[in-house]
Amino acid sequence: MSVAEIRCWAPDGVPEIHAGDDLAAILVTATGRLEAGDVVVVSSKVVSKAEGRQVVADDREQAITDETVRVVAVREQPGGGVTRIVENRLGIVGAAAGVDSSNVEPGTVLLLPVDPDESAARLRTALIAVTGAPVGVVVSDTLGRPWRRGQTDVAIGAAGIRVVDDLRGLPDANGRTMGVTVVAVADEIAALADLVKGKAENRPVAVVRGLGEHVLDVDGPGARSIVRLGNEDMFRQGSAEAYAEGYRNGYAEGSQETSGSSDDEVDGGAW
Amino acid sequence: MSVAEIRCWAPDGVPEIHAGDDLAAILVTATGRLEAGDVVVVSSKVVSKAEGRQVVADDREQAITDETVRVVAVREQPGGGVTRIVENRLGIVGAAAGVDSSNVEPGTVLLLPVDPDESAARLRTALIAVTGAPVGVVVSDTLGRPWRRGQTDVAIGAAGIRVVDDLRGLPDANGRTMGVTVVAVADEIAALADLVKGKAENRPVAVVRGLGEHVLDVDGPGARSIVRLGNEDMFRQGSAEAYAEGYRNGYAEGSQETSGSSDDEVDGGAW
Repeated sequence: MSVAEIRCWAPDGVPEIHAGDDLAAILVTATGRLEAGDVVVVSSKVVSKAEGRQVVADDREQAITDETVRVVAVREQPGGGVTRIVENRLGIVGAAAGVDSSNVEPGTVLLLPVDPDESAARLRTALIAVTGAPVGVVVSDTLGRPWRRGQTDVAIGAAGIRVVDDLRGLPDANGRTMGVTVVAVADEIAALADLVKGKAENRPVAVVRGLGEHVLDVDGPGARSIVRLGNEDMFRQGSAEAYAEGYRNGYAEGSQETSGSSDDEVDGGAW
Repeated sequence: MSVAEIRCWAPDGVPEIHAGDDLAAILVTATGRLEAGDVVVVSSKVVSKAEGRQVVADDREQAITDETVRVVAVREQPGGGVTRIVENRLGIVGAAAGVDSSNVEPGTVLLLPVDPDESAARLRTALIAVTGAPVGVVVSDTLGRPWRRGQTDVAIGAAGIRVVDDLRGLPDANGRTMGVTVVAVADEIAALADLVKGKAENRPVAVVRGLGEHVLDVDGPGARSIVRLGNEDMFRQGSAEAYAEGYRNGYAEGSQETSGSSDDEVDGGAW
């Protein structure tokens, strides 16, 4: 009976990372001997720290605003404070634009890496140079979901890995073609790694062994290719925001007594 | 150097499941000796088959309509066909309401289990009775995400497992309290299991070892508790749908020349 198996472990002993540290060298020491087909998952937090993305910011809210390219939805919370769902520079939609104020020095915040795919590619090159093994690299971050409680880790950077596995058109076990299945491999790897890395401990890196079928000989498309925006995005605005925009436009049209005929696109929203 | 480690494997040799099969007995045979703290992840597909949820349906679209309690967003696809994002009976928001037409007999579709938390609880009880080990059970299904390409597996049923790990208020490694982190443990476990189970092969079950800290002595809250709906849901309607509703209401108000004063809630949408 053959068995598909994955192992994932997160070594202790990764030191506190500072700006300018050689993260690849630190990862090589922490992870030990890597094998061909291993995937190394690194929390974006330590990538950002190594890249000097810790910045002075008395006001976390202003830092979030600075990292935001588009506001998707805003909601005042019952207990005070405001939740802002925004698109950040990387096209990622989530709360707080990736601005991180936990596990950083007081009076500072940590921004996401400038280009996490590029960070992953640099780490991949450095790891391969040391270990001689073709490995994949995922840079992970923590993201909420609109209709489900809690957050999961996702891939915001990737190199040497098939980020999605497109099974559309392949036969299923009964020989019928499968529906719309596109497996979000890199995000599932990030989620797996989160389970072993944890949040509170100093275990920002994990190694996943057993997914060599998804490891590539090249950097590949990267995690940027996972982002679904623009015309594909059915949730470009929060419901309240889209309703309010529609109401304003509808009210303006109705006030002009154009008797129901309008050149405006009624159901297009911001798309 | 201590190491946190997870192993996950998906045994081959699980037979085709039919209505009325004793799924727990089949799982015991397939998974071999379970240990205390193991989590068994089962694809909802085989749970549904064992529970006789395969129904004759010439029209898959009608079956989706029957399983839908609320339409969130509808979009015609460029290549033809329609994507419907809906809330199903279980409160889960996704495409196709969980109606599955792959890996089933022609002319039929497979509906989700009636109560996947209850299915998970029954399996947990039966597994514990056979193995004597406290184990957790997750019933998984495949779900898309609004802003990211590809699908991940999530937990639609759970028993004996901490479905979310609420770290709010706990100290981080620097002794500062962590922000809003609530780890979606059950969903991350489902994602992990998807990586080993695969989609095309007959490997509908996986065992996860190493997460005993999240395994409970009781059935626990179940996956239903992960659902975020109602007032917490900022994306209760697709942007186009919310815009159109706002436009209609705004236009009606404007046409009455009420000069901008209205008793209607302008920014409330459907909430």
